[in-house]
Amino acid sequence: MADRHLIAVEPETRPAMHEVMVAAVEEAGGTIVPIERASALMFADPMAAGAFRGILDAGVNVEWIQLPYAGIETFAHNLDADHLWTCGKGAYAAPVAEWILTAILTSFRAIPRYVRSTSWQSQEGRDLRGAKLTILGGGGITDAFMKLIAPFECEVTVVRRSDTPYPGASHTMSTGDLHNAISDADAVIVALALTEETAGIIDGAALAAMKSDAFLLNVGRGGHVVTGDLVGALRNGAIGGAVLDVTDPEPLPDGHPLWELDNCVITPHVGNTAEMGLPLIADRVRDNVARWIAGDDLLGPVDVNLGY
Amino acid sequence: MADRHLIAVEPETRPAMHEVMVAAVEEAGGTIVPIERASALMFADPMAAGAFRGILDAGVNVEWIQLPYAGIETFAHNLDADHLWTCGKGAYAAPVAEWILTAILTSFRAIPRYVRSTSWQSQEGRDLRGAKLTILGGGGITDAFMKLIAPFECEVTVVRRSDTPYPGASHTMSTGDLHNAISDADAVIVALALTEETAGIIDGAALAAMKSDAFLLNVGRGGHVVTGDLVGALRNGAIGGAVLDVTDPEPLPDGHPLWELDNCVITPHVGNTAEMGLPLIADRVRDNVARWIAGDDLLGPVDVNLGY
Repeated sequence: MADRHLIAVEPETRPAMHEVMVAAVEEAGGTIVPIERASALMFADPMAAGAFRGILDAGVNVEWIQLPYAGIETFAHNLDADHLWTCGKGAYAAPVAEWILTAILTSFRAIPRYVRSTSWQSQEGRDLRGAKLTILGGGGITDAFMKLIAPFECEVTVVRRSDTPYPGASHTMSTGDLHNAISDADAVIVALALTEETAGIIDGAALAAMKSDAFLLNVGRGGHVVTGDLVGALRNGAIGGAVLDVTDPEPLPDGHPLWELDNCVITPHVGNTAEMGLPLIADRVRDNVARWIAGDDLLGPVDVNLGY
Repeated sequence: MADRHLIAVEPETRPAMHEVMVAAVEEAGGTIVPIERASALMFADPMAAGAFRGILDAGVNVEWIQLPYAGIETFAHNLDADHLWTCGKGAYAAPVAEWILTAILTSFRAIPRYVRSTSWQSQEGRDLRGAKLTILGGGGITDAFMKLIAPFECEVTVVRRSDTPYPGASHTMSTGDLHNAISDADAVIVALALTEETAGIIDGAALAAMKSDAFLLNVGRGGHVVTGDLVGALRNGAIGGAVLDVTDPEPLPDGHPLWELDNCVITPHVGNTAEMGLPLIADRVRDNVARWIAGDDLLGPVDVNLGY
């Protein structure tokens, strides 16, 4: 067993992330060592999943792996019961929650229409105060969003795997009750991890269950929404509009029908930008390395069976 | 002196407002009577300032006048010390505060750029969390905004006539210190009443005092900003951008240079729309009529000397 102070930060293909992770490890009292001597691996490039297996194989003493980002689909096939796995889940929640509130207010206040206008328009817009919101997912993003939405006195329904009451929610329902949970919502927010169970959860039937003036906001993964069904629902007015921070395919290719729809806004996966995220993942690495050395529980544990 | 239960609601030129005000008076225990017999006048058309003097002159027993809306510039020349005057100030604060948060988040998250895009963009956007905001005005809108912004842990500076500490603000400064108060703000919010003192308060010098990436948000009156100076500041990058719910002139005419600027969004005086506002002014009339009959202090008193 390696000394828990010995930590590897690899690869170096994303210099800005590598640099803040190295600093965070050292601030927490760790010592940077090559992977061969390390007790833990801080994986420093979310885009380098292809290099992951080779690096981990060299880490013969590695017991714990910290993955970057909250969504770990591209790493999921590597998960095993021989290691302890953590990811960035929860760490990025604050900016993503801000994105959700931005998307809701943008939609409720008809900002896209006003941005495009070059003449004084008729009045359009509704109050968020007291609205009905349904959010899919009960993780860190929902926690952070609950804090931001509290002053608006909304009726918030949380949909998650179990219907155990979610703190602060008006109602908590399980995924099996999805259509019921979204049928009277003014806005439906997708803030789930992408798994086999949740892929395509917003399909034509779900969109048809929504109110015709309701908004769909996706800050989970593009694969949660069946894109073709969404295009149809936006075209025929089955829902009021959508704001998407994630798309399927992603990036959304030029000429895709979603670009042409006035009731759809695409933001390019900026719920948490690289610039916003660096200090947040650095905080997570610092916290977790300190916990690792002290033998405490780690933040953001990945459930190997659930895959997130 | 007329019986305080006897209330006139006039004119009838705006039927929707007249109707909700009549209902509100009756719910509060008042009796609707012609102006000649009334103890108080609920003025039911904010656009009919020209009819005001004639109606009031017929109200020989009128002691109290309730004006609609929060801004009363068009009625201000009628103010006198012989009557008690109240207006809608504070009543509309909640939706206007929502507009402010919408405008800030829209700006910080680069929503206008994404609305206009038809291809996947590079990442842009900043966190509101921890930002520095300066708000001009210490009235009901600021009160309501403080509740919405609290979870974002911003550093909020309030600028108002006196520098008496504003509840919840990080700093309170007087109007004389304006340039100092806005010099390090990420966003400057105008939420003032329009008076001789505040007209043109955001001029070229004020805009030059702002940071080059700061946003200007005006939800007060168009006359608070010197439009020509703003056009210049937006064109030459003296500030980052503007979101204007009020303009000078208003409505902003077709072809005005503000319509053409990518870093300016115009919303057509919808901080509080007619639809949002009706139930709110009805609440105010109901509250105030009940207070009038009971002999209690009224909400939203107008200071005849200050003119708001």
